[in-house]
Amino acid sequence: MTVEQFADRHIGPDPDSERRMLDTVGYGSVEELMDAAIPEVIRWHGRLDLPAAASEQEAIAELRALAARNTVAVSMIGLGYHGTHTPAVIRRNVLENPAWYTAYTPYQPEISQGRLEALLNFQTVVTDLTGLATANASMLDEGTAAAEAMTLARRAAKTRSNVYVVDADTLPQTLAVIAGRAEPLGIEVRVVDVDTDELPAEFFGLHLQYPGASGAVRDHTALVAAAHAAGALVTVAADLLALTVLRPPGEIGADIAAGTSQRFGVPMGFGGPHAGYLAVRSGLERMLPGRLVGVSKDAAGDPAYRLALQTREQHIRREKATSNICTAQVLLAVMAGMYAVYHGPDGLRAIAGRTHGMAARLAAGLRAGGVDVPDGGFFDTVTARVPGRAAEVVAAARARGVNLRLVDADRVGISCDETTTDGHLESVWAAFGVAPVSGPVPAALPRALARTSDFLTHPVFHAHRSETAMLRYLRRLADVDYALDRGMIPLGSCTMKLNATTEMEPVSWPEFAHLHPFAPAEQTAGYRELIGQLEGWLAEVTGYDAVSVQPNAGSQGELAGLLAIRAYHRDRGEGHRDVCLIPSSAHGTNAASAVMAGMRVVVVGCDADGNVDLVDLDAKIDQHRDALAAIMVTYPSTHGVYETGIAQLCAKVHDAGGQVYVDGANLNALVGYARPGRFGADVSHLNLHKTFCIPHGGGGPGVGPVAVRAHLAAYLPGTGADGRPAIAAAPFGSAGILPIPWAYLRMMGADGLARATGVAVLAANYVAARLRAHYPVLYAGNKGLVAHECILDLRPVTKATGVSVDDVAKRLIDYGFHAPTMSFPVAGTLMVEPTESEDLAELDRFCDAMIAIRAEIDKVGAGQWPVGDSPLSNAPHTAAMVSADDWPHPYPRSVGGYPAGVDRAGKYWPPVRRVDGAYGDRNLVCSCPAPEAFAQ
Amino acid sequence: MTVEQFADRHIGPDPDSERRMLDTVGYGSVEELMDAAIPEVIRWHGRLDLPAAASEQEAIAELRALAARNTVAVSMIGLGYHGTHTPAVIRRNVLENPAWYTAYTPYQPEISQGRLEALLNFQTVVTDLTGLATANASMLDEGTAAAEAMTLARRAAKTRSNVYVVDADTLPQTLAVIAGRAEPLGIEVRVVDVDTDELPAEFFGLHLQYPGASGAVRDHTALVAAAHAAGALVTVAADLLALTVLRPPGEIGADIAAGTSQRFGVPMGFGGPHAGYLAVRSGLERMLPGRLVGVSKDAAGDPAYRLALQTREQHIRREKATSNICTAQVLLAVMAGMYAVYHGPDGLRAIAGRTHGMAARLAAGLRAGGVDVPDGGFFDTVTARVPGRAAEVVAAARARGVNLRLVDADRVGISCDETTTDGHLESVWAAFGVAPVSGPVPAALPRALARTSDFLTHPVFHAHRSETAMLRYLRRLADVDYALDRGMIPLGSCTMKLNATTEMEPVSWPEFAHLHPFAPAEQTAGYRELIGQLEGWLAEVTGYDAVSVQPNAGSQGELAGLLAIRAYHRDRGEGHRDVCLIPSSAHGTNAASAVMAGMRVVVVGCDADGNVDLVDLDAKIDQHRDALAAIMVTYPSTHGVYETGIAQLCAKVHDAGGQVYVDGANLNALVGYARPGRFGADVSHLNLHKTFCIPHGGGGPGVGPVAVRAHLAAYLPGTGADGRPAIAAAPFGSAGILPIPWAYLRMMGADGLARATGVAVLAANYVAARLRAHYPVLYAGNKGLVAHECILDLRPVTKATGVSVDDVAKRLIDYGFHAPTMSFPVAGTLMVEPTESEDLAELDRFCDAMIAIRAEIDKVGAGQWPVGDSPLSNAPHTAAMVSADDWPHPYPRSVGGYPAGVDRAGKYWPPVRRVDGAYGDRNLVCSCPAPEAFAQ
Repeated sequence: MTVEQFADRHIGPDPDSERRMLDTVGYGSVEELMDAAIPEVIRWHGRLDLPAAASEQEAIAELRALAARNTVAVSMIGLGYHGTHTPAVIRRNVLENPAWYTAYTPYQPEISQGRLEALLNFQTVVTDLTGLATANASMLDEGTAAAEAMTLARRAAKTRSNVYVVDADTLPQTLAVIAGRAEPLGIEVRVVDVDTDELPAEFFGLHLQYPGASGAVRDHTALVAAAHAAGALVTVAADLLALTVLRPPGEIGADIAAGTSQRFGVPMGFGGPHAGYLAVRSGLERMLPGRLVGVSKDAAGDPAYRLALQTREQHIRREKATSNICTAQVLLAVMAGMYAVYHGPDGLRAIAGRTHGMAARLAAGLRAGGVDVPDGGFFDTVTARVPGRAAEVVAAARARGVNLRLVDADRVGISCDETTTDGHLESVWAAFGVAPVSGPVPAALPRALARTSDFLTHPVFHAHRSETAMLRYLRRLADVDYALDRGMIPLGSCTMKLNATTEMEPVSWPEFAHLHPFAPAEQTAGYRELIGQLEGWLAEVTGYDAVSVQPNAGSQGELAGLLAIRAYHRDRGEGHRDVCLIPSSAHGTNAASAVMAGMRVVVVGCDADGNVDLVDLDAKIDQHRDALAAIMVTYPSTHGVYETGIAQLCAKVHDAGGQVYVDGANLNALVGYARPGRFGADVSHLNLHKTFCIPHGGGGPGVGPVAVRAHLAAYLPGTGADGRPAIAAAPFGSAGILPIPWAYLRMMGADGLARATGVAVLAANYVAARLRAHYPVLYAGNKGLVAHECILDLRPVTKATGVSVDDVAKRLIDYGFHAPTMSFPVAGTLMVEPTESEDLAELDRFCDAMIAIRAEIDKVGAGQWPVGDSPLSNAPHTAAMVSADDWPHPYPRSVGGYPAGVDRAGKYWPPVRRVDGAYGDRNLVCSCPAPEAFAQ
Repeated sequence: MTVEQFADRHIGPDPDSERRMLDTVGYGSVEELMDAAIPEVIRWHGRLDLPAAASEQEAIAELRALAARNTVAVSMIGLGYHGTHTPAVIRRNVLENPAWYTAYTPYQPEISQGRLEALLNFQTVVTDLTGLATANASMLDEGTAAAEAMTLARRAAKTRSNVYVVDADTLPQTLAVIAGRAEPLGIEVRVVDVDTDELPAEFFGLHLQYPGASGAVRDHTALVAAAHAAGALVTVAADLLALTVLRPPGEIGADIAAGTSQRFGVPMGFGGPHAGYLAVRSGLERMLPGRLVGVSKDAAGDPAYRLALQTREQHIRREKATSNICTAQVLLAVMAGMYAVYHGPDGLRAIAGRTHGMAARLAAGLRAGGVDVPDGGFFDTVTARVPGRAAEVVAAARARGVNLRLVDADRVGISCDETTTDGHLESVWAAFGVAPVSGPVPAALPRALARTSDFLTHPVFHAHRSETAMLRYLRRLADVDYALDRGMIPLGSCTMKLNATTEMEPVSWPEFAHLHPFAPAEQTAGYRELIGQLEGWLAEVTGYDAVSVQPNAGSQGELAGLLAIRAYHRDRGEGHRDVCLIPSSAHGTNAASAVMAGMRVVVVGCDADGNVDLVDLDAKIDQHRDALAAIMVTYPSTHGVYETGIAQLCAKVHDAGGQVYVDGANLNALVGYARPGRFGADVSHLNLHKTFCIPHGGGGPGVGPVAVRAHLAAYLPGTGADGRPAIAAAPFGSAGILPIPWAYLRMMGADGLARATGVAVLAANYVAARLRAHYPVLYAGNKGLVAHECILDLRPVTKATGVSVDDVAKRLIDYGFHAPTMSFPVAGTLMVEPTESEDLAELDRFCDAMIAIRAEIDKVGAGQWPVGDSPLSNAPHTAAMVSADDWPHPYPRSVGGYPAGVDRAGKYWPPVRRVDGAYGDRNLVCSCPAPEAFAQ
């Protein structure tokens, strides 16, 4: 009898359950099963060289030691990262609440109304503050939002110019991301000083920073008009807090606004995660990348939220998509939106006013002390000229615990924020060697740019001003949603497994939460060591030689990996190689990423068993041999199968001079058993929010490190300035959540990780074995085994009975489940990935529900219930529906609301009936609807 | 426009709402209202001398600085306080989850099934481990549990002896609490060395420690038999972890077991809070003090939990009660129970085994090094003899970061626990100057006392072994309950107001959580400063001269205050004064406390207005003038009225030589406006879990400091050894949660506190004004105003229609509310205390619901619905009921489930129908019922 270790807590089935599951699947041990399932050609028989598994307490102690090596200084660096007070009620009840952080992307709107409402709040904050018509549900950061704005402008512009003009006062890291994105797309970026330079004659877009990185607040009205005259679109990268007091981009004619909502209550986290934003004027909404939440109605005609215009997205449009992004930053967008809900417009104005007052007093003190602070309006940031003395001033401030921005040898940037105190100002003045100034000073906002329009007039921004009211609002929204803390979310390809509390806790610690991404290296030693260890462990797990954690989503990892391949070919004089082979079964993101990396997508077919068709592969290689850049495959395949041809595939592509990209989405089926970097692949991205336990957060944050063999290591992401492309704005991307995968790896150890993989594969095969008699299992590999997920084919059932895959998915809600992945990778199917974290009781509850649903389908098939008025077609059933005074349906209420096996006392009731997505797309509403819409 | 301060977040109504509420009540300002409501004779016009209100961030920064002055050493002191690993999933999802910590005592069982189940788990843990029949839902700590065991034994013993025998190897602080309780009751405590001394000829009870404080594990079987032969009862104070491997008290014939469950995952917290326990053999269950959870059934015949045998309790039996305790330690009992659920019997055995292995190795090393460790069995603690060197060894260990127990000049106690590591053992050996020992050593548990019986065989202790399963279990239980995070809990006298997150967060910090109560003073400087400040601020708020935070519940504060009065009289040669006057309207606890303090209770009547009848007071004073010890009154009265006669009352009692005790339960109506210590009272206890924002935790922890005028200061609680009575086991009681009231006072400041009081009184008067036309408001003071609560008289309605106060209370659940206080202080009424934290929207929602219910009552009155089959009599309605296939009721389903104004999408559904309490009392089941009971 030993005290339980973390792996025992992470893995759901205990040894006894494991035995029963193996009996059902027909194997004597997990090893035997894995031997049978995984092709020997890729099978790795080593043991991961990782530190021995730490207990939860040991891991926390080590993390505390790492945290202690970070120094939380006062950050006045600015550049889009600001100190902010996260309201404690939001930290505890959103960031630290599994009901929010373990939720999935709201593809099943009926059980996601809470986070959809929270995202609608966020979108309303962005549209109201920017003065534009439509905002999406968040971007990965300001840099990527600006880059997406560039490509949006290119698609929408009337001119065919390939020139993109960027304001010289743009945040340097934004410029780096824009430049990195522009290059493979053949876009020429031209940086102009908008105060002095002329605009070029032809250009498709103009990027303006507002206020500028220097702090300057400029009136951009004339530039906007000039750009429009040239047929170009204008993006204004604007600070949301400043927009509470400054005329918004929409009111000076901007087409697009981009930026970050970090300072709305989201800690800096050494760079992320936080929610970037993107908003567009009317007419551009259908070109917006990313998630967009909108209002529609349910089957009863009541208002209901859901993701709008999904047909824009990469999983539908593939290489024709607007963008490759599929992850948003939902958890952080929820926080930022709630920050606005809690403060309301008056509160935000007060915070902006206080912040500006600090900056104005700071400038007054500097000027009074003879320091040169250029004339002109500013909001929160001033740039002081101290010729030749900048480094000295920055050092003096640092010695006082305050970080300033070293612009160059002569200039120092100082940003104020919500957290700035008189003491901070005094430190800065002292660093400059000037005397303090007390009392109020005149505002330095340009009077002509003062905001006159209202914002956040919706009642939601006025109703939750006390902590009690806020707490209840957060609880109510969480309560209408379904997340991992209620039950299984068996989403194929998405790996919804345990996000352990011990992994999550350090994220809230000040030493991890409150560091600026450009803080001096000596203040971030703990972070750098943690990141170095994590990258090393990930390299060991994957068999690659080098890893970068910078990409802040899987899609960004894909782009980074493909750009590395591109650069590699180019440096070898084979820059003409631009064909990327992608199997037809691939996730749409692959194709979209390839296009963004400047490649041409050539599709390779699949055979009847769902495997990559090696004959077609040969043909496509022959056809494109000289142009072949890469192949992108997912392994195990998106069909959930360990394809045996993978080694052959790699060899064929390599022989033709191409590189092999293995999408790491399904790495949960490989860890400890096979290493892509050693079975033939050159590069992969990983999804730390899948295999490595970063929670999905309701649709983000994700983290998508890129891992490469040695020959590609020189091409990993960088800062632009270092000759490597900047994929994200911050050097280490979403560093603030990297303690999560660090803790996971540290606590699982080599044996725990391998056991997790084995149990995940066992669980999928157990579900397949139990359900095979009721639904065909679509694909299988060796010995009829699946990998870590299985596809249940509903098409025969649909054909025979008219009951659709949607009906089954929604009916699962009545049984207390989140549906599996619907119609991916094959339309009309459900893909089930149970993961290792579900225990046997929950697996059986799911299988029992699926079998019971099959019996219900048979009743429809037998004509007992009409297909259009059955428990399936009417699913999900709300409490209001089953307790309505009228019950016109041909089955009893109890069958609707309490199907067999449901927990009667603790039943989860969806808040709305089936949502009509198409209605909302036809009648697009993407900000908070008037309360009257909800009147009964 | 200013940035919002904490008081703005704590107080619900904003200025605009305040104006509207004042309009309804008919006053121009809160000051005007307070001038009218509070009798000028007690009104205080000063301003509290407190530090200026800090922002939430400033308060946290100050608390971090205080925390940094505590040193978290390795604690091997033992004495009932042990290091433990709180499973992170339990910390985050219970201790840090408002759904658990803001819940109220489960008096309304239909909306408390989650915490009732959790408490039943706790009771099952205690009964299974102790081998006794019935355990209550927790005690305040081991010391008070042992004291309650003593009085229970006295009541149950066959002998009339007043001698209580206590094992000399009892924890010293337990002995101190026992002695403190015994003295006023005329019990003689005799300490005997059970190894060498004879038992006295006559005694009513025997207290044994198992294992002893020294660590010794003795076979007590013969002593138990001897005690029984003498007609005495035996209490075994047993360590729950040890009981997983040692023969339990019930199997050696013990009648009672007492102890603590702290080491089951509850941090030491510098002494508390944690859940003590008390269990009794069959036949004694109706004499158990405290809360007892049992199984009963609901209106549909389904199993349902509720508090059992409430007629034992002080609020019913008053001076005849078993005990004065009304608070349990629910939140901590939930944690301890969940720790057992998470580990299961095998896990607990493994932890015990590991702990014992450490202790055995420690002893082996000491002996190998020549240190004298007495022979005999032990579990986790050894006492080493180092003649003359004990202090030196303890100091050497401390220098290595390990705290040991200095028993005396010659002996050192060393306790191992779940957190002990090899490194800790090495430090101890080094401190003794002996060489380390590695590898396993033979066990030192007495073979004859090895546990052979099973425990925790119920499925709940086997089903939640993975973190995912545990998380879902916690969520499910929280989801069936109603707490402040869902809506208003307008409980008169209980002051259910905001428990702000910023107040709660520091409780989890290691520097506050992980300190042993007997840690050396230099390691607890931060705590001591925090406590000193808090006591000072509380003295300022109440107008008293000295405060002790030791009492860990209001009832204990009462006892402490009365003991101070008693000691004061005695020291003045008036020890014969033993009459305590108590108004008939008083809370039952007052009377029970007076009896425990050795006083005789004399009841003073109330007049028709509910005020203390001053004529009767005069009569009772005359009658008992020479024996008059004290009067206990609540102010404002339990009727929620500022009685104008209070000053007169104080004077009359003082004139007769008595002392005035003002129960601080209703202090929320006084803070900043009146100070009991300055309007005539001599002593008060405060309820930090009411006015000062410690959350109710579902029925504890409470904290009940006692505050006194200077002449009583010498009689405040102490350690027994210092000549002052020990009221609780730990010197500072539940120190671990004192950061909560500290933060509240620090962030509110003088103005915020006064504003809170004013708004609380305004809110009560607003509710009274809105509801007066629908329900008579029973009592009022000046100008028809109530204080901070109002009593709605249901008796006329009941008489006219048959609809009972219960019906209304349960019907409020259907409307989404927790009922107000029922039938206290007047049977057939509801007492509503809205507090300052509810905003106008919630107040109106409540008033609207009460008005709508009145209309429903009228329909019953009009004969439209039969009184026995109405939405009122059938309330609360579960989802299962309103969606049942059959609906035999004379009103529509929608009226049952969705009365007017209810949030349809987010409706809270109770998990069970109305619970039949009497059935459960007749068929008492107080541990987890077999799962079959729940089969449908």
